[in-house]
Amino acid sequence: MFNKILIANRGEIAVRIIRAARELGVETVAVYSQADQDALHVALADEAICIGPARSNDSYLNMNNILEAAVATHAQAIHPGFGFLSENSKFARLCEEMNIKFIGPSAEVMDAMGDKINARARMRKAGVPVTPGSEGEVYNAEEALSIAERIGYPVMLKASAGGGGKGIRKVTSSEELVPAFNAATAEAKAAFGNGAMFIERMIYPARHIEVQILGDQHGHVIHLGERDCSLQRNNQKVLEESPSVAIGQTLRHKITSAAVKAAQAVNYENAGTIEFLLDEKAGEFYFMEMNTRVQVEHPVTEFVSGVDIVKEQIRIAYGEPLSKKQEDIVFRGHAIECRINAENPKFNFAPSPGKITTLFLPSGGVGLRVDSAMYSGYSIPPYYDSMVAKVIVHGENRFEALMKMQRALMEFELEGVTTNIDFQLELISNAQVIAGDYDTGFLGNVFLPEYLKQED
Amino acid sequence: MFNKILIANRGEIAVRIIRAARELGVETVAVYSQADQDALHVALADEAICIGPARSNDSYLNMNNILEAAVATHAQAIHPGFGFLSENSKFARLCEEMNIKFIGPSAEVMDAMGDKINARARMRKAGVPVTPGSEGEVYNAEEALSIAERIGYPVMLKASAGGGGKGIRKVTSSEELVPAFNAATAEAKAAFGNGAMFIERMIYPARHIEVQILGDQHGHVIHLGERDCSLQRNNQKVLEESPSVAIGQTLRHKITSAAVKAAQAVNYENAGTIEFLLDEKAGEFYFMEMNTRVQVEHPVTEFVSGVDIVKEQIRIAYGEPLSKKQEDIVFRGHAIECRINAENPKFNFAPSPGKITTLFLPSGGVGLRVDSAMYSGYSIPPYYDSMVAKVIVHGENRFEALMKMQRALMEFELEGVTTNIDFQLELISNAQVIAGDYDTGFLGNVFLPEYLKQED
Repeated sequence: MFNKILIANRGEIAVRIIRAARELGVETVAVYSQADQDALHVALADEAICIGPARSNDSYLNMNNILEAAVATHAQAIHPGFGFLSENSKFARLCEEMNIKFIGPSAEVMDAMGDKINARARMRKAGVPVTPGSEGEVYNAEEALSIAERIGYPVMLKASAGGGGKGIRKVTSSEELVPAFNAATAEAKAAFGNGAMFIERMIYPARHIEVQILGDQHGHVIHLGERDCSLQRNNQKVLEESPSVAIGQTLRHKITSAAVKAAQAVNYENAGTIEFLLDEKAGEFYFMEMNTRVQVEHPVTEFVSGVDIVKEQIRIAYGEPLSKKQEDIVFRGHAIECRINAENPKFNFAPSPGKITTLFLPSGGVGLRVDSAMYSGYSIPPYYDSMVAKVIVHGENRFEALMKMQRALMEFELEGVTTNIDFQLELISNAQVIAGDYDTGFLGNVFLPEYLKQED
Repeated sequence: MFNKILIANRGEIAVRIIRAARELGVETVAVYSQADQDALHVALADEAICIGPARSNDSYLNMNNILEAAVATHAQAIHPGFGFLSENSKFARLCEEMNIKFIGPSAEVMDAMGDKINARARMRKAGVPVTPGSEGEVYNAEEALSIAERIGYPVMLKASAGGGGKGIRKVTSSEELVPAFNAATAEAKAAFGNGAMFIERMIYPARHIEVQILGDQHGHVIHLGERDCSLQRNNQKVLEESPSVAIGQTLRHKITSAAVKAAQAVNYENAGTIEFLLDEKAGEFYFMEMNTRVQVEHPVTEFVSGVDIVKEQIRIAYGEPLSKKQEDIVFRGHAIECRINAENPKFNFAPSPGKITTLFLPSGGVGLRVDSAMYSGYSIPPYYDSMVAKVIVHGENRFEALMKMQRALMEFELEGVTTNIDFQLELISNAQVIAGDYDTGFLGNVFLPEYLKQED
């Protein structure tokens, strides 16, 4: 096993990785920005190195400083966590060049899956269902029109080189298509210097179903079941659960098999997630994207599968074969995660950094886990993501899990900053959420407007 | 289900019960002494009633005040936790008379199992192995001598009405027996007004193996596997684990079957524990006693069996059948519990009450649970048991569990009072403990003398 690894991240995921490494007998190096010198990951790691000023570009995204820290401390591997450099193939390549193992897939796979048209093509070739749409880049409105007529409206026009919402249009009829295409491709050309577009049928209403995958260096790929992450706001997940109430055993088998096929098609190494959109009525699902890293919501899968995903990541990176075969994975019960953010849900979810004056984390009893980077007196810096903790529960069934989550959120005390704890309590008390009857639009379009109407 | 229950206890077990009740949708009433008004169980319960001054006799053992609190709050049941009134049959009878359900077995069973000679007789009759010895009360030295010759030395002479170490003698040869018997019976007569004795073969070296039992009101009894509680100091358990490394599948089947038979023999209702002494070399085990309550170490069983024992207690008391059959119980992995006490191991484990100035409870990651009644700024009162928290871990195997425990204890911060955290860290780092090679004498006779020799 590695003697020492460096964790190129902060917050609860850095703490999570340090804990896993320590339980494997692996020493840890934390890196931190000047704003994070009092952070928990710094206190818990065996060594800690400051890698620059508060701004992420100067520290947690500063590849040179991180690699220098790894060299200086003789770290043999780097765990990137999620966000920051976790899906940066250049960083993965630099690690490789310096003979430091990047704990994740190869740079080639990251590149292949990061390019949307390429990813769609590879998945289609592997027999994984992708959203009906164009098979490659589309450069003119007539071609777009004929594809749209074939797949049916509404469709999404997306810039091939896209990002940040630029060059995207939703089109509901043939009348709208030509002007929309011309506007979008012009926007894309202006923003990215590349007007290439692709077209997909818009799947809505839909559920966001994703499958956790593990692949080792010896060609083994297994899945750890699915997660339902449909409770989102502006594409930000808020609450995740496993299993999904939207799929039965037959569909579960299909979707997890498709995910395994997708991972096998790219010789996937380490932990990854295949995201699908599920058309619940039709019972059809479509590949959306592959996330080539550990995800925020990985603990719900850990609860139901009994597999420690972060430990597996480290073992896989070291070259060990997967510790379990597919048939050894026994799914048990139901798990739910609520993300706890320092933010004000009543004020457009504005971040609420500051000093924590009172802190009591829920704990104890059966099937409760809190992953957090907070302690009493900790100051949440204003520079980073507002997520400060995750509350995860595991019950024999979904109802028990919901009751546990309610118990946990009710005993959570966090004063000094504003949080979304009450928002999450309301969410799990909503009749549709209790019934499992929600899609990706529910939180933003149905729940939130009602929530905002309430008096404080 | 009950609408409301009262918890006649304090500390972490009261908090544990409140959490379980809340997850079942049952309201809770805490009772507390004047010394406990700032206690966590008071803060977490839906209602709280002061039942008297700090001294246990005036509050937590004050049956009238507790029953009055139950009546005043319309509590339908009382959970006694462990210690205090949990094995007091008079209290159970009073509850019954007032139509308040006592969450535990019947008063008759408590009486029957509380009387050592009676318990031995019933177990023998039920076919449960008991320590070789007298079959009833022994009143004279000659009879004692003939029994001792038959069962073989060393033997223990014990007062039938005994307790508190009075009227007990260890006898290693026939020469010692007659004078020892005469001294012990005189001591018993003086202490309890009853000179009746019984004689048992002394099982040593031995391991303390106990089996968790659940019985419902419909005649079903299941076991949840065994716990090894051999790491004790003066009969106080310090670290518990499940499964025991000392027994294989055949012996496990025998000992758990014997425990089920023991519970069935007395129509046992609710959670209970059958304690055995195991002669590891001979592979023989002997009934020691039945604990008619939930035990401190129940969480290790919850981890490996997946059953929430406290919730089952409440459901059973309400009249529900057991939620699982024996064949539905799947044992998974290995669990270990370390009791965290506010005490000074270097000073004869003297209690160390006082104000907690800094508190950081280990948390997060897979398979870790902390049951505690502490919070930042809490003052541990001097009147009660020194146990303030329990750290419980669950790993795929024993080695992983030990590594997790080490990780958890290393990140535990508790300042302001002296604790046994470092002692526990040393204990789990001991080569014999790591090897699982210990008996009931190991901690006191081997480990502790070495530990006390160390420089600070």
